[in-house]
Amino acid sequence: MTLSPLAPAAIAELPPIAGVRLNAAAAGIRYPGRPDLLLAEFGEGTVCAGVFTTSLTAAAPVLLCREHVKSGAARVLVVNSGNSNAFTGRAGDAALSRVQDAACALAGCEKEAFYMASTGVIGEPLPDQRITQALPALHASLAQDGWNAAARAIMTTDTFPKQATRKARIGGTDVTLNGIAKGSGMIAPDMATMLAFFFTDAAIPAAALQPMLEAANAQSFNCITVDGDTSTSDTVLLFATGKAGNAADDYGDFARALSELTAELAQAVVRDGEGASKFITIDVTGAEHDAAARRIAMSIANSPLVKTAIAGEDANWGRIVMAVGKAGERADRDALTIAVGGVTVARNGAVAPEYREAMIEPHMKGREITIAVDVGIGSGRARVWTCDLTHGYIDINGSYRS
Amino acid sequence: MTLSPLAPAAIAELPPIAGVRLNAAAAGIRYPGRPDLLLAEFGEGTVCAGVFTTSLTAAAPVLLCREHVKSGAARVLVVNSGNSNAFTGRAGDAALSRVQDAACALAGCEKEAFYMASTGVIGEPLPDQRITQALPALHASLAQDGWNAAARAIMTTDTFPKQATRKARIGGTDVTLNGIAKGSGMIAPDMATMLAFFFTDAAIPAAALQPMLEAANAQSFNCITVDGDTSTSDTVLLFATGKAGNAADDYGDFARALSELTAELAQAVVRDGEGASKFITIDVTGAEHDAAARRIAMSIANSPLVKTAIAGEDANWGRIVMAVGKAGERADRDALTIAVGGVTVARNGAVAPEYREAMIEPHMKGREITIAVDVGIGSGRARVWTCDLTHGYIDINGSYRS
Repeated sequence: MTLSPLAPAAIAELPPIAGVRLNAAAAGIRYPGRPDLLLAEFGEGTVCAGVFTTSLTAAAPVLLCREHVKSGAARVLVVNSGNSNAFTGRAGDAALSRVQDAACALAGCEKEAFYMASTGVIGEPLPDQRITQALPALHASLAQDGWNAAARAIMTTDTFPKQATRKARIGGTDVTLNGIAKGSGMIAPDMATMLAFFFTDAAIPAAALQPMLEAANAQSFNCITVDGDTSTSDTVLLFATGKAGNAADDYGDFARALSELTAELAQAVVRDGEGASKFITIDVTGAEHDAAARRIAMSIANSPLVKTAIAGEDANWGRIVMAVGKAGERADRDALTIAVGGVTVARNGAVAPEYREAMIEPHMKGREITIAVDVGIGSGRARVWTCDLTHGYIDINGSYRS
Repeated sequence: MTLSPLAPAAIAELPPIAGVRLNAAAAGIRYPGRPDLLLAEFGEGTVCAGVFTTSLTAAAPVLLCREHVKSGAARVLVVNSGNSNAFTGRAGDAALSRVQDAACALAGCEKEAFYMASTGVIGEPLPDQRITQALPALHASLAQDGWNAAARAIMTTDTFPKQATRKARIGGTDVTLNGIAKGSGMIAPDMATMLAFFFTDAAIPAAALQPMLEAANAQSFNCITVDGDTSTSDTVLLFATGKAGNAADDYGDFARALSELTAELAQAVVRDGEGASKFITIDVTGAEHDAAARRIAMSIANSPLVKTAIAGEDANWGRIVMAVGKAGERADRDALTIAVGGVTVARNGAVAPEYREAMIEPHMKGREITIAVDVGIGSGRARVWTCDLTHGYIDINGSYRS
């Protein structure tokens, strides 16, 4: 797998988080010798928040996490790649249960404090024995610095590990927030990233953590799309160990850091979109309300015709008009304004008289494309991120069994 | 442009329709020397029905046809390729009006009896002078046998002309029904085909014609998708000259013929889908109601992951599960059944124990793929048609300016 041309120049180094120990191993779940199993253990008192796929055929571990996040207590997380344990029927539930038993025995915790996520092929039995056999040695190897190993173990067709960190202050105390994520196909609204995990030493009750995660998710993972397809396994979990010992206080700065971190990782997922050669930021303004703006932006972001045009470095704004029109949201055809790379190409429902293609050619040849659309109705706005649609996407998905 | 591998072995020959004379010319609208202008003239008393794109940024000629179809009288039809006259503002309306004046003068008819459709690049001024200059000679050349010329003149990235014919009986009288259509990208539900025109000598009042066209359209052009993109120009018109002189009677056999004809042309559009190498029929049963079944079927048909897997001849039914899940319609994960090429691959929410990939390998290597999904909830059902997603689609749309 060639490194995405949109990959960041450097991978961030993640500091330890008090109360989190983690590591990865090669359990041979699908491919021998490939890291494919992540184990993380949390100190007592750790709480958890989560958001999950809206798919009605959600995988077995998603159903389990949805239940466990209600109590909010967390002590152990197992993540595997290579098999999603989705559409595996009762056998899938039983396999999950055996992994749960093994992990909880090692961590010495209640079953309700167990979380799992699985990514990879759908509909094949999870080889849970390979996981339970690998867990004891993996448990013995847990360390505070296992972040990069963890980020690598959850990769499937990803070409680079996605990891980022932020500091925040809560009531005069410094807290740390780490995150890892994986993409990179089957990325779409209403849970975009297949998997993302966040870890903090902050002391924040689960009841406060959950709305902060939902708000950050709405502006990050729910604002990206690679191909409009929604995974059966999408999972975002946030674990807070409380070891920073901060007072219960204003969480504003923490929410800011969480927002930044989720946005950074969401964008990293798009930058590693299957076959991506260009990173596209789409701003929609002037919509009836924010939700309408987001649907219009997603209609543009998911249009194969828009995405292939950008892959061909063609500023085919007529296709943007088409995508606005098909979104089904109110737009004033005669007030529509479109800018590409900061250059107004269409104004008041027609091509801008001063516009010449040469004006945006250099922009189209770059790696970062911006599209701004004002639909002339109201004050609703949204920003979403996507990538172009290239031969690489066809290559990867015509042969990879995901 | 290479001929689609899914093209029919032979192009149907269309018989004359009393009261219809038509022909095509090369007006140089976008490319010199390419047939790009179709003119059809209808005898007095011709009535018309129409269905149009749901796009909120519909092109100028769509807005005009929507108005004129209300009165239902029709005497002249102009269709051009090379320029869609969409997103062209007031200048577009003025250009359309000048074509209307010229065509109505030649046909000697009221402005309300004029219909037009335009397909091609969005957002560039329509070179209406080239059209009005070409119209007199074209009008002088009108003939009863201009069908193939007409079908060719409306092509853009189509690789073969789409034309078909049926006979029907109304009250003991034989009537004829001809149809032509064009694709082949920007094909999606709620008006799929960019353009399709039907012509009959039957005597049927406009008030009876419109619901028959709507019913036929719902089961044909609204059941196909190439890329999920909806054109700003989608137009289906049905002209009935009344020259067959049939009595007002039971239109059941005519409705049957119209249904067959729209389905044949809708499927022809998919068979000429940009880059298509396989024709895919998707049946969904067991849904809450028919509309839910159609949304699930369309979710499968529009999934880039499903379409690329089929291009790769990979029976990746896990991606079908994913597409069912993301459709947002009720489905019973534990009752879901999936068959590919008539072989049950998944039953009761898990892989069928007897299923082996080798069983459907020959089917996947063929050109006609069938997918049947039962979602185990109710009795809603739908059938849709689509094609695979290949490198050809990227090639065409990364360079063609539509």
